[in-house]
Amino acid sequence: MKHELDYFFHPDGVAILGASEIVGSDGFYILRNVCAGYTGKVYPVNPKYQELLGIPCYPDIESIPDKVECLIYFIPARFILDIIRRSAAKGIKAIIIESAGFAEAGKEGAKLQKDAVELAHSLGIRLWGPNCMGYLDGHTRNVFSFVHSEKWKTMMHPGDVTLIVQSGMLSAGFLMSVLERDTIGISKVCSIGNKCDVNEIDLLEYFVQDDTTGVIGCYLESIVDGKKLLKIAQSTSKPIVILKSGRSEQGKKAALSHTASLAGNTMVVSGAFKQAGIVQVVDLYELIDIVKAFSYIKNYRPDKNKGIAVMTFSGGAGIVTTDLLADYAIPIAQPQEATLQKVQQLFPSWMSASHPLDLWPAIEQNGSEKVYTTVAGALMEDERVDAIIIECFATQHSDPSFWGEIGNMVKQSQKPVLAWAVGEKIIVEQYKKHAEASGIPFFGEIGRCVQIFKALGFHFNKRGSI
Amino acid sequence: MKHELDYFFHPDGVAILGASEIVGSDGFYILRNVCAGYTGKVYPVNPKYQELLGIPCYPDIESIPDKVECLIYFIPARFILDIIRRSAAKGIKAIIIESAGFAEAGKEGAKLQKDAVELAHSLGIRLWGPNCMGYLDGHTRNVFSFVHSEKWKTMMHPGDVTLIVQSGMLSAGFLMSVLERDTIGISKVCSIGNKCDVNEIDLLEYFVQDDTTGVIGCYLESIVDGKKLLKIAQSTSKPIVILKSGRSEQGKKAALSHTASLAGNTMVVSGAFKQAGIVQVVDLYELIDIVKAFSYIKNYRPDKNKGIAVMTFSGGAGIVTTDLLADYAIPIAQPQEATLQKVQQLFPSWMSASHPLDLWPAIEQNGSEKVYTTVAGALMEDERVDAIIIECFATQHSDPSFWGEIGNMVKQSQKPVLAWAVGEKIIVEQYKKHAEASGIPFFGEIGRCVQIFKALGFHFNKRGSI
Repeated sequence: MKHELDYFFHPDGVAILGASEIVGSDGFYILRNVCAGYTGKVYPVNPKYQELLGIPCYPDIESIPDKVECLIYFIPARFILDIIRRSAAKGIKAIIIESAGFAEAGKEGAKLQKDAVELAHSLGIRLWGPNCMGYLDGHTRNVFSFVHSEKWKTMMHPGDVTLIVQSGMLSAGFLMSVLERDTIGISKVCSIGNKCDVNEIDLLEYFVQDDTTGVIGCYLESIVDGKKLLKIAQSTSKPIVILKSGRSEQGKKAALSHTASLAGNTMVVSGAFKQAGIVQVVDLYELIDIVKAFSYIKNYRPDKNKGIAVMTFSGGAGIVTTDLLADYAIPIAQPQEATLQKVQQLFPSWMSASHPLDLWPAIEQNGSEKVYTTVAGALMEDERVDAIIIECFATQHSDPSFWGEIGNMVKQSQKPVLAWAVGEKIIVEQYKKHAEASGIPFFGEIGRCVQIFKALGFHFNKRGSI
Repeated sequence: MKHELDYFFHPDGVAILGASEIVGSDGFYILRNVCAGYTGKVYPVNPKYQELLGIPCYPDIESIPDKVECLIYFIPARFILDIIRRSAAKGIKAIIIESAGFAEAGKEGAKLQKDAVELAHSLGIRLWGPNCMGYLDGHTRNVFSFVHSEKWKTMMHPGDVTLIVQSGMLSAGFLMSVLERDTIGISKVCSIGNKCDVNEIDLLEYFVQDDTTGVIGCYLESIVDGKKLLKIAQSTSKPIVILKSGRSEQGKKAALSHTASLAGNTMVVSGAFKQAGIVQVVDLYELIDIVKAFSYIKNYRPDKNKGIAVMTFSGGAGIVTTDLLADYAIPIAQPQEATLQKVQQLFPSWMSASHPLDLWPAIEQNGSEKVYTTVAGALMEDERVDAIIIECFATQHSDPSFWGEIGNMVKQSQKPVLAWAVGEKIIVEQYKKHAEASGIPFFGEIGRCVQIFKALGFHFNKRGSI
């Protein structure tokens, strides 16, 4: 039997109310996106057209000849009650309302939204939105959204990252930036807007059971049921990372005007997040970077008797890393003498290997490929080493395919590696591409790598005891 | 009369000891770099060659027929004492030792380094380094360094940013990343390595008097004279930003092995930095971003009775920004009613303008160009607004030249603007290029923009009272 939310994610037939032929309009993009990915039957509805993008267009819902389970609503707010009634008659089970003009637009809109929810529930229909961008699915390729860019077709790779975003534009422009910047595999990106009915709790319950979801990142302006959120987080070993905005008084006020959210639900605070094993973040790329790390790193078991080893091209960067690890109270590895001896063989005689491992003199003699793979191998075998940060000077004199070898070591030893590189942009990009294809995520700042180890340690130690 | 350090920065004649024809060797890159930029006479010295890069090569210093004021030393460490003596006889006043093998390599090297300094001082010669990469100058185009990339020729634009870096590789690979990533105008980038003689204090004293230096950023592993540093900082209105590594016990140990630095000079601590008006940072791009902001923003007078206004494409991003401003205790603007009314005219009727200004509905109706310029204009005229953060969705439907108009407003009102954008990379890059050419710096995260306002406020309020 279908789960209620399956009517959104796996519908048998989708109608688009407000589909348009006007290139550049949102009604056009929704239709084009749905047609491009969704494999079921699509029914544009708009009395102005007989055909849109080469498929029949219907004057109203009633004229659709076949079964429809999901309706995407993109006409003015005031028609919603009428449409819910007619949808019920048609057998529609799920409506994604992407239009604005509801609770976020004032009292009248709030009343309309409330009435819509009551009516829908009485008729067995679930509502998604309003004031949202729908969702994208990396596996089914359903893009039930008006995101303008066609880039999702090539840039959205299937994977295990699911995002729940209570902000339309953050799931559009920002998502494009993220997909272009990072190699992140997407399960689902859900924009829930005013979340009048389907909310973050419903989705979290669904996604902790969802086979394609491995890690969940949320941008939330309010939390409808704090207790339930904590219970869900406690019940799952999937990492949950939350950026909860409206933390400040001014932020709360802003959240109220944005998605009519009462951010001031103070029941759920940082302490409760922590207790439930939820990783809390405060900025946007921070959210993405930490979710990305959890997507790459699955079986880490941090051991406070071991520590993080640092392989670097720069003594200075190594010291900065050490300081930052100390700031976060993360143990720093003290490699075994045997490990340092292996590393020493790559060094010129005037320099003795010590941790953090400043490898540049070794690289000058032996090349990046040999040095990074040899040293990574030695550290993987060292039982005092828990995980590794690799800092590279990506030079054109090196062949970035050595990352494949390091990736194999990571798979074998289960010791995670995070990487950071400097150098010419185009070569850094090659390094990043090779490393991420081999399971080693790259990040933009040393501090971010360190912060990620903190988050990983927090999550996996927490989960280790369940 | 020449300042002692002028013999490094404006020498009459430069000799390169250890110049090489072997492409890929550092001795080759030093020679090529010097020849490419320096406008005086260059004398490669190496008994193996009669000619290098088409200019005469000399077997020894004594054979150079003309005046030489600066020598770049790139032969093994053990020859240093002999070379200092012979340099003195030749009238050389400044030696940049780029070779390693001195104090950082153990006791013997430390003794050699100490002896070299004593000898040099007795003969009226200043030593730079050793174990360093020399320096680059954006104005004179002197690149007395073995940085491998030729990219500095096109990417290093003259400007007022001066960096002092106590780490060779950080002034090479990292510098390339920085120059490619940001539109930063460079005065000088100095790699001081073991700083056996010329140190950060000498350079700071020189640069606070240097007409082309407007802001100074330092990566330091030790501080040779804390009191003097504070005195210099207190004496100048030029912003000084310092990343002091070796803050932690483990970091101190690492610093000792890297540049033989005793980072544990605890006399200079965060508190003292603060009192002297020094901005302290802990990460590498953080250093660059804050220095960049100071390079763009010169005449800001933060007023705690006013506040930062937020213009955004996303209500969510606006709330996150508000929270982060609150985290840093930075006043958030409360625009005047008249300002909100001006903005309201761009909005659809269902949405009322409130701060933070979520402009997307206005942009959908009027386009980015009109909305961003109109709203920025209104905020510039609002006496409750001190400065602005602009957050954009960079779309291909907009013409990024509108940044020029906003740049003109900034020049007139002296209210600084920081910007952040999402969207397709290529369009974000265009936005960034146009904005930075118009005097508006872009940054990669909202949190960074907020942190920069903190640093700006700290510096300019401090300085305001001098």
